[in-house]
Parts: sequence; C-alpha cells; structure tokens
Amino acid sequence: MGGDFAPHATVAGALLALGELDSAHTIQLVGRTAIIAAKLDTLLATEYAALKPHRHRIDIVDAPDVIEMTDKPAAAVRGKPNSSMMIGLKMQSDGTSDAFVSAGNTGAQMAASMVILRLHAGLKRPAIATIFPSARKPVVVLDSGANVDCSADELVQFAQLGAVYAEDILGRSNPAIGLLSIGEEAEKGNAVVKEAHQLLQSAGLNFVGNVEGRDLPNGACDRGPIDVVICDGFVGNVVLKFYEGTAPFIIGLLKQSGLDEKTMLNALKQLDYSEHGGAPLLGVNGVSIISHGKSSPRAIMNAVRVAVQAIETRMDEHIGRRLQEGAA
Amino acid sequence: MGGDFAPHATVAGALLALGELDSAHTIQLVGRTAIIAAKLDTLLATEYAALKPHRHRIDIVDAPDVIEMTDKPAAAVRGKPNSSMMIGLKMQSDGTSDAFVSAGNTGAQMAASMVILRLHAGLKRPAIATIFPSARKPVVVLDSGANVDCSADELVQFAQLGAVYAEDILGRSNPAIGLLSIGEEAEKGNAVVKEAHQLLQSAGLNFVGNVEGRDLPNGACDRGPIDVVICDGFVGNVVLKFYEGTAPFIIGLLKQSGLDEKTMLNALKQLDYSEHGGAPLLGVNGVSIISHGKSSPRAIMNAVRVAVQAIETRMDEHIGRRLQEGAA
Repeated sequence: MGGDFAPHATVAGALLALGELDSAHTIQLVGRTAIIAAKLDTLLATEYAALKPHRHRIDIVDAPDVIEMTDKPAAAVRGKPNSSMMIGLKMQSDGTSDAFVSAGNTGAQMAASMVILRLHAGLKRPAIATIFPSARKPVVVLDSGANVDCSADELVQFAQLGAVYAEDILGRSNPAIGLLSIGEEAEKGNAVVKEAHQLLQSAGLNFVGNVEGRDLPNGACDRGPIDVVICDGFVGNVVLKFYEGTAPFIIGLLKQSGLDEKTMLNALKQLDYSEHGGAPLLGVNGVSIISHGKSSPRAIMNAVRVAVQAIETRMDEHIGRRLQEGAA
Repeated sequence: MGGDFAPHATVAGALLALGELDSAHTIQLVGRTAIIAAKLDTLLATEYAALKPHRHRIDIVDAPDVIEMTDKPAAAVRGKPNSSMMIGLKMQSDGTSDAFVSAGNTGAQMAASMVILRLHAGLKRPAIATIFPSARKPVVVLDSGANVDCSADELVQFAQLGAVYAEDILGRSNPAIGLLSIGEEAEKGNAVVKEAHQLLQSAGLNFVGNVEGRDLPNGACDRGPIDVVICDGFVGNVVLKFYEGTAPFIIGLLKQSGLDEKTMLNALKQLDYSEHGGAPLLGVNGVSIISHGKSSPRAIMNAVRVAVQAIETRMDEHIGRRLQEGAA
C-alpha cells in the first residue's frame, strides 16, 4: 500500500520480480486484499499478461490499516498494528517470510523494523544503505538518512554494516571503505569524522581513509576504487537527494541543446539510482528494504531482487557475526 | 602564484578580465616579478596579443615567497609574510587595492584574510559562498568549506552574509533563503539545523524554510525559487565536490552513448561552476575571492569580475551594516 504509485508499482514490480527470480521464491503482497486482488487481475489481463504463469507464486495477506506518508513514525507503529508495514514485518519475526520490501513511509518503516525485527546485538543504530551509480562500479553510501546526529562509534558500526552489504549484495571481496570528509588527510573533517577516522584504522576493515564528494561519482579516490562510503544520515541524505535532482536538471540542459531525447535518457538511466533497487535498513535482525516513494514497477522489482540476494547470501547473519567480531 | 595552473591561468585570466571590464579598473599581479613579467610577455606575444592595449592597466607587485598547496594555513601566514597571499591582502588594508583574488591554498587564504582584513564586527566566522548552477537561476550556497562544525548562530549569520551576496552580486531583491536539511518540515534535521530554523524565522530575512538536496539543482523548493542555501561547511563542501565530480561522470556516460562530444560539452558547460567565478570569503572586512586550484584563465577572469562587482556594489559595507542590524 506504500509509495506514491501504490498499488500499481508495488504489484507490477512484484510480478516483474517473479518473472526474473528462481521459481522457488514466492511473494506475499500485504495490504487491503480487495484492492490488491483487483490490481493483480487488471495487470494480468493487460500489460503483464505474459507473467500469468507466476500468479500462483503470489499470496495476498490482508492488512486493513494503511500508514500514510504524513503519519508520524512512532504514532503509526503504535496506532496501526494492522497496517501492511506492521503485518509484513511481523511475518518475518514469525518465520513466515524472509524479507520485507516497502516504498511507504520511511520513518515508519525504520521504527517498525526496529520494534519488530530489533537491532543486532551491540548495534547502536541501524543505517540505510543506498547504491550510488559511479563511473566505475556502484558505491554503497551509508547512512543515507536513518540518523541525523551520529557518534564516531556509530560511524564505525556503519562501516561494518556497509562492508557486509558490499560483500553479500554487490559481491565485492574485501570491500574498500572510505570515510566521507572534506579532504583526504586524517586531520580533515568535523570532530566526529576525525574521531571516526582514528577508530576505523583499527576496526579490522579495509579502510582506505577519507574520501571527498567528488570521489563518489568517480567511484574511486586517489588511492584506488571505493566500494563503501561512510557518513552520517544528514550528509548522506543531502547528497542522495542532490543526486536525484541532478539527473532531471541535466536532461533539461541536454534537451535545450537539441540532442535526441531518447538516446540521452537511455544514457542517463544509469544515473537513476532506483535502477539499483531498494535501500536496505541495515542493522535490524532481518531484511527490511526501503524503496523510494516514487518507485516504478522496475524499481520495486529491483528492490525485491536485493531482498532475495540478502536472504540467499545470509547477509543478516553476516552482519550479526561482523558486529560480534567488531565488539570482541 | 597560486593554483594548479599558475602563473598561466592567473595571468591570462587577468588579461581576459581587463578586456571585459570598464577601463577604470586595473589589476595588480602579485608574485615573483620575473616569472609574472615573462609570462605576461609570452601571452601578449602569442595567444593574447589582442589584449595588448590593456597592458598598461596591469601592475606587477613583487612577492618573493610562495605559499604551497600543502603548507599549513597558520604556519604559512606566520612564516611567509612576503608571499603573494600576504602582500596581496595587505595592499587592501593599506588602501592600495580594493579586492583580492587567488586560486592558491584555500586554508591559507582564509587565515590570511582573517588576520589582515579581520572579520566584520559581531561576526563569529567567515563563510565561503559558492554559486551552484541550477535549472532556474544560480543558487548561492554557503558555507561551502570554511567551517566544519557550525553553531546555529553561525548559520544565521551565514544567511545574512548570503543575502547580501545574492543582492549585490546576483542582483536578487529580497533573496529567498533556504536552510539545507533532510525534509522541509521545521522539525527535520540535525540538532544545529533545527535550532537554526527557529532562529531564522525571526532574523528579518526572507527565510523560506528548509530545503532539500534535490532543490539545489532545481533552483527551487515547493514554496518557490531559492536564491541562497545555508549549510555548514562540511555539508557544503561535500555537496560542492560531489557536484564537481558529477559533470565528468555524466560526460563519460554520454560519450559511451555515442553522442557528439562537442555539443554535449557545450550543454554541460553550465554545470561547470567555475564559469560562475570565484567564491568570496564572506565576513572579512574587504574582498577576498577564493578561486578553485584548477581554475582556467576563464575562471580567473570570472573571479576578477565577481571581485569588481563586490567593489562596485559595496558588498562589504552592506555586510557590515546587515550584521549590525542583525545584532540590534
């Protein structure tokens, strides 16, 4: 029920994902049954008719309440226990599902994930990991919005979360971790970043030092490629949204220049981070994938694929282990 | 002597600026006399021969010391009193020059500007203002790197500095000021931003509330166009450098797509913030323009134009007055 284009984008995205995934995977669509069933019928009778053979892999799970985009997270968690958000996450703690994907209210998804799935032992805060397209391989940026004021300890834990994510979901071995700052020298940055820099040097990670804003689109710093970039959720969110706003701006510039629109849109599609799937809320026990409210069916499909990768690689277990090692 | 392409870019930029500016303006080139004179002769004998009639508007002022990009700011200020940075700024406090432009060591320029020009009365910190191209009019972003940890009071002062800059240099009347945050609601943001939001509501400015990362390339938020965006220097620097890195990345994407390179480069030139001139260090008594180390002659020329505009609009005086009013 969540997201600006629900239920169309979520139901269509689920169908697309089933078409791509191994037949062992099934999807539970959680929300108002009548609405979901009607949407599913319409899609399978029209645009998505080719995916009819996958209909039996979908279960519809009723959830009468809907958390609105404007609901306050804590109030939504307390006041709407029968929302698709709460029921969908509870299915994971009950063992009837393995992962949760939503394009709904991000704050509510964070709060509900923390309440229902709980955090890994020793972890202070969860973090949202986002994939940034780059000139080289995509880069994982975290936190991209879960926490506004972070301590140095929390940034180090984000590095551990991000390393596991890069290994499991992006298949990077010994991922290179950069700390986002305003200069590559250890003494550059704000107080928290300078402290985190010191802590990261003995955190048992492949820490490559500070990276700068320009290294993000480049996918590398002077010392080589970067897989993961660590920052607090304020900076991460500002940069992420800035990036989102840049592609439409550039398309506008190119249009004015009179080039063929279709070719350019294709070239710039790589800039669309939704192509890379949803952003997992890392640190909760389980899988909770946060999709953009403006997700298209394709973006939802990609979010489901990320969820499946997280399950298959046992990312959640790896995070638990990594955090224990980090604390030991 | 400063910048990655000095003295070529600085001397050539000065010539280009003289070609564009009113004939009343003159330029003092401060640095090692022999090097500057030789460069000037070469340029006027070749590529810039058309600008020979402006030669008499250039004075060369000898400064034997050179501050390197790797020098620590405080040490450079103390240890190299005869550097082009120190001598160039002192000419302003002596009344023999009206503005200072440099593409050298930014930290040293900040430190030297604060020591020699001093801050306006009541001001806690200076800020670097950068112009971001946008889908609408360019947007002033400050602080873009002078201060890593800022208090709410400091952010409010940056808003005052930015308002004057937008009025005097960009010709905006009653400039719309946005506070960079992670949501438009007043309660969104980190602790400092939330406090600054409250203070800005009664600061006597045209404060339009919080703006998000995506509003920057857009040049507007939901409530209308934005002229000035306020943030601390950590966030501002990260976003600025991110923006710098995005254009080459996008050009790469478009090249891969096989479009005509020249047309695209022209379209994307608007993304090159150096086209918009140097970034003034706002808050010092006087005019100190910080150019990018990688400045081209064109970027230096634009920085000189910004300096002249600052002088002609009496921006510095306006800032002093605005700060007094803000304190009253």
